[in-house]
Amino acid sequence: MNRLVDEIQLRVRYSETDQMGTFYNSRALEWFECGRTEWMRNRLGLSYAALEEKGVFLPLVEAHLEFQGGARYDDLLLVNSAAELHGRARFRFDVAITQAEGGRPVVRGYTVHAFTDSRGKPIRPPAWLLELIEKAASTDTPTPVWRPSHTSDDSP
Amino acid sequence: MNRLVDEIQLRVRYSETDQMGTFYNSRALEWFECGRTEWMRNRLGLSYAALEEKGVFLPLVEAHLEFQGGARYDDLLLVNSAAELHGRARFRFDVAITQAEGGRPVVRGYTVHAFTDSRGKPIRPPAWLLELIEKAASTDTPTPVWRPSHTSDDSP
Amino acid sequence: MNRLVDEIQLRVRYSETDQMGTFYNSRALEWFECGRTEWMRNRLGLSYAALEEKGVFLPLVEAHLEFQGGARYDDLLLVNSAAELHGRARFRFDVAITQAEGGRPVVRGYTVHAFTDSRGKPIRPPAWLLELIEKAASTDTPTPVWRPSHTSDDSP
Amino acid sequence: MNRLVDEIQLRVRYSETDQMGTFYNSRALEWFECGRTEWMRNRLGLSYAALEEKGVFLPLVEAHLEFQGGARYDDLLLVNSAAELHGRARFRFDVAITQAEGGRPVVRGYTVHAFTDSRGKPIRPPAWLLELIEKAASTDTPTPVWRPSHTSDDSP
Repeated sequence: MNRLVDEIQLRVRYSETDQMGTFYNSRALEWFECGRTEWMRNRLGLSYAALEEKGVFLPLVEAHLEFQGGARYDDLLLVNSAAELHGRARFRFDVAITQAEGGRPVVRGYTVHAFTDSRGKPIRPPAWLLELIEKAASTDTPTPVWRPSHTSDDSP
Repeated sequence: MNRLVDEIQLRVRYSETDQMGTFYNSRALEWFECGRTEWMRNRLGLSYAALEEKGVFLPLVEAHLEFQGGARYDDLLLVNSAAELHGRARFRFDVAITQAEGGRPVVRGYTVHAFTDSRGKPIRPPAWLLELIEKAASTDTPTPVWRPSHTSDDSP
Repeated sequence: MNRLVDEIQLRVRYSETDQMGTFYNSRALEWFECGRTEWMRNRLGLSYAALEEKGVFLPLVEAHLEFQGGARYDDLLLVNSAAELHGRARFRFDVAITQAEGGRPVVRGYTVHAFTDSRGKPIRPPAWLLELIEKAASTDTPTPVWRPSHTSDDSP
Repeated sequence: MNRLVDEIQLRVRYSETDQMGTFYNSRALEWFECGRTEWMRNRLGLSYAALEEKGVFLPLVEAHLEFQGGARYDDLLLVNSAAELHGRARFRFDVAITQAEGGRPVVRGYTVHAFTDSRGKPIRPPAWLLELIEKAASTDTPTPVWRPSHTSDDSP
């Protein structure tokens, strides 16, 4: 499976800039979402829209962001996403965003997702989904782009 | 000094919801910003707008979010912010957002800020600003609303 | 009934600015929404959230915006909204946003709304709602803040 | 010149939906911006970022939107943009957004832009820019996607 499917390109929109001249910080979470969407379509072979239609939702329960460098309007960015199960009831994405030209880092971080039904009630992820995820995450997975040493549940 | 100055109210906008029926995750960072803005105006006695006019900028370098519960359109939320210097070159806000009615937690987290000039170049924070911050953070500071056990720089 | 209920105050958020240093254009529609929300709560005596719970939705079908002046981060704005039925199947808001200090105009425009059920299917507005609206719009209504000479259905 | 350069594709982001299940209305203006950005790069041969670097800004002075149909998360949309000078001091884009699959209309409208310097002060557009625009708009221009019968300055 091709590593490229983990990586999407996007351009910084004018609407995503702020008066400091770089992107406003919350946009990074929106770009992370774009990365997840394509990771699921390409690696899982199941779009997140299709997953929701099957009654499985993946709301964020935790997010972490490190801002490493600016990105201006019209800059072309690479969003590199790696995913894995996080215990049996969590799904985690590690994301690194860099400038397409030159590779300068822009922002990195992760999101942790629960499995819920359409009303937000926690569910056990269906077996078929866990299999899909494990297969996708293991097949020729690129070295995770970033592995911070701390997460909210790695305490002993 | 009144604890209330640390706490602002805001209503969830329709534009901040998503098709899951709760607020979209990135909005939390925008609400954190609203909290910081009023914390500075009320506790520091200096608006962030005025600070930027003096040539001091506080871009985010790190953010952490834990999503604890939903919030729907028109829900009234309380944003409780506490701030402190984080070393000599960082400024940190700990934020807890709860439902105004009933107090159910919605999201908590923190943001860490650098001190830069208008071009984003790191600067030593001016002495007068450090004094203002220390005074504001120490005067009758409420118990920090949330103190996670991990941060990016508490490694030994 | 007090004219003030038509008018809300809001501060420009940093997230709403762009690299031109003023607010990004689409934010105006989000501010219009804040005005509608409070108009309905205050003038109609029925929040839009409550209206949706009753199965009546008011999606936008048309919007018009004229940008008259800038507004910077932390500027305090007044959002003045006037509403009226627009035929029997449309609801229209005319909005004017000005600087709270000095009164300089920022943006004005209107939105036209359909009445639909929760699936977006057009419905006849319930009689009780039409009565509420007519009463609210007629009672001591301030002179409409802005009445453009053209709308999509004023053709002869 | 290829008509395709006027047309971009984009997917509806989750962050762009609202609790009604379709896109939030203000996102349409952000999509219009995406269309303009690529129109300028492809038709004008000059990116808007480059134009701003030359000291020419194109702030919105007017926008009009008609919402024709829904668009859900992950829907693929086509944004079709046509542009022309509007008098000597205005630049106008007519935009139509449709579902890529099936062609169902989603939103159409226009934006009118002034020419200003970096401080927002109106300027005469430079001759070289007017030439670029006239050439781009005339060369094999597709039939404008939408021509509403009313604009703010077509009064007699």
